[in-house]
Amino acid sequence: MASGQETTEGFEGIPPARLNTLVDGIFAVVMTLLVFDLKVPEIAATQVQAELLPRLMELIPNLGTYFISFAVLGIFWVGHHNFFFYVKRVDRVMLWINILFLAIVALVPFSTGLLAKYGTNALVSALYGINFVVIGLILYGGWHYATHHHRLVDPRLREEFIQHVKGLVVLSPIIYGIATLASFFHPLISWAIYVGLPLYYIFQTHTDKVMVQQWQEK
Amino acid sequence: MASGQETTEGFEGIPPARLNTLVDGIFAVVMTLLVFDLKVPEIAATQVQAELLPRLMELIPNLGTYFISFAVLGIFWVGHHNFFFYVKRVDRVMLWINILFLAIVALVPFSTGLLAKYGTNALVSALYGINFVVIGLILYGGWHYATHHHRLVDPRLREEFIQHVKGLVVLSPIIYGIATLASFFHPLISWAIYVGLPLYYIFQTHTDKVMVQQWQEK
Amino acid sequence: MASGQETTEGFEGIPPARLNTLVDGIFAVVMTLLVFDLKVPEIAATQVQAELLPRLMELIPNLGTYFISFAVLGIFWVGHHNFFFYVKRVDRVMLWINILFLAIVALVPFSTGLLAKYGTNALVSALYGINFVVIGLILYGGWHYATHHHRLVDPRLREEFIQHVKGLVVLSPIIYGIATLASFFHPLISWAIYVGLPLYYIFQTHTDKVMVQQWQEK
Amino acid sequence: MASGQETTEGFEGIPPARLNTLVDGIFAVVMTLLVFDLKVPEIAATQVQAELLPRLMELIPNLGTYFISFAVLGIFWVGHHNFFFYVKRVDRVMLWINILFLAIVALVPFSTGLLAKYGTNALVSALYGINFVVIGLILYGGWHYATHHHRLVDPRLREEFIQHVKGLVVLSPIIYGIATLASFFHPLISWAIYVGLPLYYIFQTHTDKVMVQQWQEK
Repeated sequence: MASGQETTEGFEGIPPARLNTLVDGIFAVVMTLLVFDLKVPEIAATQVQAELLPRLMELIPNLGTYFISFAVLGIFWVGHHNFFFYVKRVDRVMLWINILFLAIVALVPFSTGLLAKYGTNALVSALYGINFVVIGLILYGGWHYATHHHRLVDPRLREEFIQHVKGLVVLSPIIYGIATLASFFHPLISWAIYVGLPLYYIFQTHTDKVMVQQWQEK
Repeated sequence: MASGQETTEGFEGIPPARLNTLVDGIFAVVMTLLVFDLKVPEIAATQVQAELLPRLMELIPNLGTYFISFAVLGIFWVGHHNFFFYVKRVDRVMLWINILFLAIVALVPFSTGLLAKYGTNALVSALYGINFVVIGLILYGGWHYATHHHRLVDPRLREEFIQHVKGLVVLSPIIYGIATLASFFHPLISWAIYVGLPLYYIFQTHTDKVMVQQWQEK
Repeated sequence: MASGQETTEGFEGIPPARLNTLVDGIFAVVMTLLVFDLKVPEIAATQVQAELLPRLMELIPNLGTYFISFAVLGIFWVGHHNFFFYVKRVDRVMLWINILFLAIVALVPFSTGLLAKYGTNALVSALYGINFVVIGLILYGGWHYATHHHRLVDPRLREEFIQHVKGLVVLSPIIYGIATLASFFHPLISWAIYVGLPLYYIFQTHTDKVMVQQWQEK
Repeated sequence: MASGQETTEGFEGIPPARLNTLVDGIFAVVMTLLVFDLKVPEIAATQVQAELLPRLMELIPNLGTYFISFAVLGIFWVGHHNFFFYVKRVDRVMLWINILFLAIVALVPFSTGLLAKYGTNALVSALYGINFVVIGLILYGGWHYATHHHRLVDPRLREEFIQHVKGLVVLSPIIYGIATLASFFHPLISWAIYVGLPLYYIFQTHTDKVMVQQWQEK
């Protein structure tokens, strides 16, 4: 099949609309399930006045992991969202790359639950990092597969732009890999990365502008 | 970038379709999770006849908080729905304003669970109010960001209309702020606001007509 | 506002796309949550061989209520689906009729959980019926509101057709009302209705043909 | 009604957009709920260092069933996705075939939970297989109904192609049927099938090419 042909016929040329619906649906459920780590404390009626505040204070670390995981899921959702802005059609391989992606994304409530409960444990902190290393690698693999010889993307997409995005996407598994290794030295280092990386991605509007510019120059 | 340009190229000009899918998905899950505060009572087989009715009666406050939270979530969903009717494209900042919005929306089942269990406690009642103060403020910030110099909205949108909506959107965090403070005087006052505010928003068709008129006059 | 005008301007003329996404999302979550009434039995390792089969047999009533509720939710989803095929735009009142509709739909996992546990109890059987009476009445109210003077539907929709659908929609709250009352005589009568009504709606293709015919004659 | 007529009027000719939203939503929730079989272990603070690793190791079978079920759900979602690429409109019967399909799909978290807990038990392994036999049969029935006299699909779809897909779709209930029967000889045989079949479907790009070719030849 000639790459870049805007066909919508057959299995190899299906538009990604429904895949996006599935991805958005799973992100919506996964993000919402994170709240289950915030359990309403059970306190006897006579003790509520005295015990409620300290019991709620105990939930602050859980609230922290809640926001961190929500933000990281946000990063990957924004990544997928921007990624598929360029994808014109999906084939069977692309569907399965995405289903694998989703299978690892759907593990996040579990690894977040572990982190909320045993956050100072090196193993738990490492598992949390690995979860996002794998998500990042699959996203990278997906971008590589979709853009190789412009297989699934607009044929006018500039090679320079493709490489630029590749660099941006590969960054997250590398950083999360470092955080994973750092867990065995001191979990606090990994925590710093877990908090810091979302902030970097949220505010990296500069790279966006570069991309938009490159895109519009073509 | 010239404001009002109907571009769909690059990251800054992506149409909001998928963001809306994510928002609607999270609202759908959050609204449905509220039912988890209504737990089927566990009663021994021989006691069902005698105990079922009183045990179900005990759930009436939970049913009350269920409907209040459903209605408030309804307000904010309708708000987002009407808001994004005017938004033509989203950029990275807008995506993240929405993800933050969703992170606070997804806390509602937790704050509702607290209210259902410890509704007469001032702290709990205040936390419930704060949850909606923050949601309202983010929505206000989003509207401000989107409409500033017509950044993401239709350039023909009248300034008068933008200001009118701004006033409407800022109302809810103010009222919920009052309810939050009132909690420390008497939770009943805040409850009255929590019940009353949705009713106001549901029936404020007058302001709608004003808006539609202003919109059509342009 | 002139009825039948295909305007998409202002709050009163928003197309129902996002409302449908929210409705479909909530139905998806509610239907899936029904599976929570099927709990994996906890059996000690040495007893599995002997106890697993009887313990699974105990779940058969739960499987029954699972399928009944899934089917009834199916009826109302199909109803909403066909209803909104004719709705061209939604206003604030219509949004809130739908949110109320969804708030009652989202109670179904609770009333189903009650039925699965205390299905022979008259009160429980009646509550289950009432849940669907209310859902049916809201759907009826929504159809009445949308079609009155062709407020939100295609102006070419024939009055005869509107009345025909009205009769079909009003049928379900009436039948469920009878089932509710029958609960206090014998829950078995209501169960028969709960099982039978979905079957009627699933196979009533005759009325569909009448409707399609009427629609095409216009 | 003339088959192949591209009508969107009346109940029999509704485009499948909303049905797809419901299907994608339910798959999203079902896939995500699978993570509930991975429960964060409860360990006393002083024992975490020593017990965490072995307790996490105990979850490896659960992780295995998680990925198997995710992959099988992936197969059926891809199947539905490709199926509905050819479906141009849905009627009441088609809606209900899909709702039945979804009711059985939504049971997967339960049968997966059973498998995760009692995977070596013949009955449990058989029930797991039966769940997918039924899903496959309904999908087959749906394809038969939709393509019979080109009832709901593009009239240009070649009969040869329809039969080819039929063969592909009927394969899965047959294989799962064999796995179900094999459970009573040795659960390990069924497990091998449960792991192997997804791999076959993921990598069967050859049949895709045949299909695309046939489709393009018409």
